[in-house]
Amino acid sequence: MKQLLGGKGANLAEMSRIGLSVPPGLTITTDTCAEFHSNGRKLPNGCWEEVLAGLRTVEDEMGCKLGDAKAPLLLSVRSGAAVSMPGMMDTVLNLGLNDACAAGLAARAGDERFAYDAYRRFLDMYGDVVMGIPHHLFEDQLERLKTERRVSEDTALTAADLKVLVGRYKEVYKQLGKVFPEDPYEQLRLAIYAVFDSWQSERANVYRSVNGIKGLAGTAVNVQAMAFGNMGLTSGTGVCFTRNPSTGERKLYGEYLINAQGEDVVAGIRTPEPIETLARTLPGAYQQLLDNCALLEKHYKDMQDIEFTVQEGKLFMLQCRSGKRTGTAAVRIAVELVDEGVVGPDTAIMMVEPGHLDQLLHPQFADEKAYLKDVVGKGLPASPGAAVGQAVFSAEDAEAWRSSGLPVVLVRRETSPEDVKGMYSAEGVLCQLGGMTSHAAVVARGWGKPCITGCPDLQVDEHNKVARINGVEIRQGDFISLNGTSGEIIRGKQPLAPPELAGDLSKFMKWVDERRRLGVLTNADTPEDAAEARKFGAEGIGLCRTEHMFFASEERIATVRRMIVAQSQEARLKALRDLLPFQREDFEGILRAMSGFPVTIRLLDPPLHEFLPDGEMTEVCEALARDAGITIDEVLATIEKLQEVNPMLGFRGCRLGITYPEITEMQVRAMFEAAVRVLRDGGAVQLDIMVPLVGTAAELKNQEQLIRRVGEEVMKEAGVGVPYRVGTMIEVPRAALQAGAIAKTAEFFSFGTNDLTQMTFGYSRDDIGKFLQNYLDKGILAHDPFQVLDQDGVGELIKFAVERGRASRPNLKIGICGEQGGEPKTVAFLHEVGLDYVSCSPFRVPIARLAAAQAAVRSAKAAAKKK
Amino acid sequence: MKQLLGGKGANLAEMSRIGLSVPPGLTITTDTCAEFHSNGRKLPNGCWEEVLAGLRTVEDEMGCKLGDAKAPLLLSVRSGAAVSMPGMMDTVLNLGLNDACAAGLAARAGDERFAYDAYRRFLDMYGDVVMGIPHHLFEDQLERLKTERRVSEDTALTAADLKVLVGRYKEVYKQLGKVFPEDPYEQLRLAIYAVFDSWQSERANVYRSVNGIKGLAGTAVNVQAMAFGNMGLTSGTGVCFTRNPSTGERKLYGEYLINAQGEDVVAGIRTPEPIETLARTLPGAYQQLLDNCALLEKHYKDMQDIEFTVQEGKLFMLQCRSGKRTGTAAVRIAVELVDEGVVGPDTAIMMVEPGHLDQLLHPQFADEKAYLKDVVGKGLPASPGAAVGQAVFSAEDAEAWRSSGLPVVLVRRETSPEDVKGMYSAEGVLCQLGGMTSHAAVVARGWGKPCITGCPDLQVDEHNKVARINGVEIRQGDFISLNGTSGEIIRGKQPLAPPELAGDLSKFMKWVDERRRLGVLTNADTPEDAAEARKFGAEGIGLCRTEHMFFASEERIATVRRMIVAQSQEARLKALRDLLPFQREDFEGILRAMSGFPVTIRLLDPPLHEFLPDGEMTEVCEALARDAGITIDEVLATIEKLQEVNPMLGFRGCRLGITYPEITEMQVRAMFEAAVRVLRDGGAVQLDIMVPLVGTAAELKNQEQLIRRVGEEVMKEAGVGVPYRVGTMIEVPRAALQAGAIAKTAEFFSFGTNDLTQMTFGYSRDDIGKFLQNYLDKGILAHDPFQVLDQDGVGELIKFAVERGRASRPNLKIGICGEQGGEPKTVAFLHEVGLDYVSCSPFRVPIARLAAAQAAVRSAKAAAKKK
Ligand SMILES: [Mg+2]
Ligand SMILES: [Mg+2]
Repeated sequence: MKQLLGGKGANLAEMSRIGLSVPPGLTITTDTCAEFHSNGRKLPNGCWEEVLAGLRTVEDEMGCKLGDAKAPLLLSVRSGAAVSMPGMMDTVLNLGLNDACAAGLAARAGDERFAYDAYRRFLDMYGDVVMGIPHHLFEDQLERLKTERRVSEDTALTAADLKVLVGRYKEVYKQLGKVFPEDPYEQLRLAIYAVFDSWQSERANVYRSVNGIKGLAGTAVNVQAMAFGNMGLTSGTGVCFTRNPSTGERKLYGEYLINAQGEDVVAGIRTPEPIETLARTLPGAYQQLLDNCALLEKHYKDMQDIEFTVQEGKLFMLQCRSGKRTGTAAVRIAVELVDEGVVGPDTAIMMVEPGHLDQLLHPQFADEKAYLKDVVGKGLPASPGAAVGQAVFSAEDAEAWRSSGLPVVLVRRETSPEDVKGMYSAEGVLCQLGGMTSHAAVVARGWGKPCITGCPDLQVDEHNKVARINGVEIRQGDFISLNGTSGEIIRGKQPLAPPELAGDLSKFMKWVDERRRLGVLTNADTPEDAAEARKFGAEGIGLCRTEHMFFASEERIATVRRMIVAQSQEARLKALRDLLPFQREDFEGILRAMSGFPVTIRLLDPPLHEFLPDGEMTEVCEALARDAGITIDEVLATIEKLQEVNPMLGFRGCRLGITYPEITEMQVRAMFEAAVRVLRDGGAVQLDIMVPLVGTAAELKNQEQLIRRVGEEVMKEAGVGVPYRVGTMIEVPRAALQAGAIAKTAEFFSFGTNDLTQMTFGYSRDDIGKFLQNYLDKGILAHDPFQVLDQDGVGELIKFAVERGRASRPNLKIGICGEQGGEPKTVAFLHEVGLDYVSCSPFRVPIARLAAAQAAVRSAKAAAKKK
Repeated sequence: MKQLLGGKGANLAEMSRIGLSVPPGLTITTDTCAEFHSNGRKLPNGCWEEVLAGLRTVEDEMGCKLGDAKAPLLLSVRSGAAVSMPGMMDTVLNLGLNDACAAGLAARAGDERFAYDAYRRFLDMYGDVVMGIPHHLFEDQLERLKTERRVSEDTALTAADLKVLVGRYKEVYKQLGKVFPEDPYEQLRLAIYAVFDSWQSERANVYRSVNGIKGLAGTAVNVQAMAFGNMGLTSGTGVCFTRNPSTGERKLYGEYLINAQGEDVVAGIRTPEPIETLARTLPGAYQQLLDNCALLEKHYKDMQDIEFTVQEGKLFMLQCRSGKRTGTAAVRIAVELVDEGVVGPDTAIMMVEPGHLDQLLHPQFADEKAYLKDVVGKGLPASPGAAVGQAVFSAEDAEAWRSSGLPVVLVRRETSPEDVKGMYSAEGVLCQLGGMTSHAAVVARGWGKPCITGCPDLQVDEHNKVARINGVEIRQGDFISLNGTSGEIIRGKQPLAPPELAGDLSKFMKWVDERRRLGVLTNADTPEDAAEARKFGAEGIGLCRTEHMFFASEERIATVRRMIVAQSQEARLKALRDLLPFQREDFEGILRAMSGFPVTIRLLDPPLHEFLPDGEMTEVCEALARDAGITIDEVLATIEKLQEVNPMLGFRGCRLGITYPEITEMQVRAMFEAAVRVLRDGGAVQLDIMVPLVGTAAELKNQEQLIRRVGEEVMKEAGVGVPYRVGTMIEVPRAALQAGAIAKTAEFFSFGTNDLTQMTFGYSRDDIGKFLQNYLDKGILAHDPFQVLDQDGVGELIKFAVERGRASRPNLKIGICGEQGGEPKTVAFLHEVGLDYVSCSPFRVPIARLAAAQAAVRSAKAAAKKK
């Protein structure tokens, strides 16, 4: 069908077939094109007669005739191959106009301007597409006339002006020695020839060769009646959704404009009325529209977005496509379509986009259009949702204001780990610097807290507690609103709508969970995060960063610093002993919150200097020196010694634990002691200990032996067996290559795709801003690889590691805990590659669940297709 | 043979077989061991009788008898499996001694102390190895006696003391209920049993299982006569080389000591005399030694290092092995052995170590032993050779002193690109900080200039122009000497020997070049370097770093800085236009120096901030602001903007040329214009343009199109065709994975193994010092991966890239230009992997040529063996 009629023709035929009232038309087959060319540019015998016969049917249905000045039929002529070839030949609209017909159209529509505007547009298009006259020659004439009339907009030209323009356009034809065919049948014949010729044009041949399109006979030609909504009060134009796109309610939702063309709506000349107007004025057409909607939903099995025209009481469907919708609507529609028996759960799952769930889980503005005039600037949409609060410029202020019950938005140049408590107190965070994966962005996303980063127009003066953006000043205490989904920064206190967790959601997520194969775990560092993630359906913790707890109190960070500046192993051991109870307490809380689900705890990972003060530090250093019983010079020397040229490639990860085994020892002891306490209380535990930044099998072996030794010690002391596994992050390219050797020791792998992306590309997350936008603009990168996993490079390493790891340990558990773990394209890829689970921030858990289910459905379909 | 006699037994048999006068002995086969165990610890029938018969032959040859108090035969008993199993059973020496025989030996040797020392040692060894008495019990007795005699050295004990000790050792046996067998035949029988038992000991079983040693019958037992050089004036001991190990001259070279044991020489009790002493005193034995030497060289086809003993006029060869030699000797010996028809060139090539060539190409100290007392400290041997000069502490001083004709050694905390001219002026460079691949090390090696880095004991105070090391002060103008081969820092002006380029070398290198398959190119940035490298046999330039020329003059660096701080494209273009003549001039010089060999020029690579001033920069910034016509604030803002958290993973490589195409454009224009000039003068040119830090095929495509466009422009302007290719570095892991796609555009690949190692491991070259030593000590790394290519990880990526690159472009040229390109193990690996060439610093070119030839010979042999 498609092979013979081309894509468009087949679609048209299909729409007719299911009983939709589309404008009538006819399709000349692709075979005819082939014959046309093999005949030496001649239509096959009888072809033209068939066209004329088809045309007669169209004329009958439309109640007008091609070339009839009283009731002129106008046609669109389009090419259409079996494979879409955009730009091969443009459409010709309004074919059938000549001087007489234009006058007739004007009379019939009661709108002279409309008729002559259609006429001059037709002359332009026909000249360009069929007669080979460059479009700009017509454009020149239009500009000339506008200059003469001293107007700047096309719409300011009167009907009389357009008549003049029609004359000048015809002059253009003459000057090039071309004759505009006044006879509409001749217009049609030449247009058909032109479409067939375009099939053999150089442009089309190059296109086919570049895109490897082969084995096609030729193009079809689609000839279709034009429908006009401005033929009087029984005509009109409208758009509608088959269901409400905001709420999902099953009720026609749309707008209608009597005696108007679609362009009038677009140009904003007239304001449309509710769709009920159509029901009132033309109940027959309205009923037909309802019938069409029902047919369309039944056929396409989804809510549709429709454009239609009524010409003299007759309804014509111009276009339909799946309608855009809010998250709430998406879930409700999907669930109701299942209830109505239109689709099954597999299809319903594919109808909700991961982004829809994101919307559902964050507060939104009540009306995003209402605040447009108050938008003062835009940054990167680093963490979605809406936040409203009073501006503060330091983490301390954020905490203080919050504890007085005031909602705040924290505004910073950038954030550092020391700001974490202040960020937690804020409704949202706004940063002048940083990208989508800066500290602020990652932390905020983890909490589902709106955040905007990387805003070049913003200058934050933290010292004077004021920010400036595009001439607007934001002082401490001023209300501002952030749209973390769009990146908009808005002045004032904009009204919010609470997240709408429709009752349908749990039903929907049940289908999701039944279908997915991938487990979904969460990245969580505190018992609170863990509990939050459980609510979102997390099946364990894939990454617990022990070090995030180090900043939780003054006492903790002071102890950590004492450990770092220790001038002897003894002093370090003392500090570690002091740190142990803190760690044990945290681990205990997390293990309890996850009761029996796996909890993957990573050993200390960041370079130690991240825990030392920076900037104005005299005071902190003095305190630290006093605290650790060493001199200020020793503190400063340690700080200097720990500075690195490329900290991301420096002294971190397991390199720390191998160099200072006592650190690993303390952490492991804290984990096992915590597990023992939970087990003694009758809780369930699955402790997974993860070694970071492993690049050689020997590194993992070193830490594994230490872990097992300490684990055995604690278990023996306590007389309690702790179910535990030892595994590793795969985040250094070499680890992926050496996965076979590493899996001899590792019981599980977790891909750290942030680091793996950094090293595979050689991109520093902190510095990529210098060229990323340029790369995206030039198409050198399709996505920010820190947002969407790079399947060709990083993905290839992941595939190697999975193959080699499983070859040496068949039951190896494999997951991912990098930032992309909740990104739908990435989740789909990881499903295909055969991972066991993904782990992502709590707010992304539902998204990952959905993406995993969609991937499973998609591969089940592909597998079924293959059979 | 080996299977039956064990390794040692077979060797012994072999030495006898070729006619060497080794001490006579007999070997009990491994089969016997198997029977012994399967018989329930019984020797097979007739075995003991065979041992006795063999013993008779030994006694005859030695002219003494086991257990004969007048002329006692002493034996050594050793185990020996077919596969070496060190530590399985120790040797028993001096077997055959008892009270009577000890007295006899004393009389015969005229040395009572010697006899009783041998006796008490035998009691200790026999007790430990055969009777299972812990060695420390004997040690305790020895210490007790020394305390009683108030002496601290064993040698201070008299013969009488040793007799007492013999008595006390026997007491030890008795106290443990063990009986020392006075009968030498019983001693022997029990020793044989002990050797057989040791085969089934737990230690041996564990050893075999850990090392995967399987299928062996048992151990052999080697029983051999002991020879003594202290049996009077017709006895003696000596060591000798079959040729002179310093010069390679074909003449016996050694030392001899009359009436002495080897231990006497080692203990430094007596000073040996020249080997001619033997010729004079025992011409027969001397002649036999000469004959043995001839036999050995003929057999082992190499110069031998020999230990021998003469017992009562009879020569016994105790040990022989390939002798260590200097570079000069190595080449001369190899060449002469070919001339003498002993070996063919293939074998000769394997006899010279790459390190030997390194010695030949650098000045050496006249006598490394002479300066020992003046060594004040040690650092990393960053670039080999000897340097002597007066200490200076800044690059400017180095230049100034040098131009006044004074030789200087530049002493710095560390060096930066701004120090390059000062380094060039110095004889050698000493840095407190940095590793084997720090800036100073890399630059110095490139020039073959001695350099020592990473010296923890050194404190350099550049401000006060003084350095301190282990209590010694080095002030400006003080003479110091550096041994870049050993890392020794030496006080004063130590005498040098010039590099000895023996005439044999060119003959030798001709064989080398005939055999190698790998091309050897050089990394060179200036015409001077290029010319130097040509002398060393470089066949082109594999890496010319355009940016190294930027520091060549004040004017250049000022222009570069103007380009970087340009506030508009126009200003940048202006600065680039000013830079073009400099670049063109450099390229022209290099192309001429390499006349027709390929010259691979890399586009701008380092992060731009490397060219900006750092540290005390107010003055420079002011000048720059004036120069560029912008404000100081703009200069400072640019500097700040270019700062990066991880510069190694930042805005560098092709990311620069893609973001600022005008930079690439200028560089490419300069290259083509230079090539045109050379071609016009009738020179030959092969211009290879290399794009750095490519990670995606699109990056290379972007730069390739630009390169080809500019190239076409210049060639059209000039009417001259330039033979050129466009290729890329493979130095980002992703590039290796995407090699197939990249090779669609690239005409050549060059592995940048420095960056590739950094990113594959996640190790920053600048920061690895924090944990590298620890990793080497713990065996987590076998080598510094920046010195010796990591074959398992980085090497695997190289293999991928070679396979995939060649699959998509079969004639793809592939090389390496990283630091390891001149490292022999790495060169061998790259030969196996199928690279076309390696490129290394000029001084390493001969080493790489040799390593490449050795790899070729080795694989030819392996291939021949397979057949
Ligand atoms: Mg990581
Ligand atoms: Mg590089």
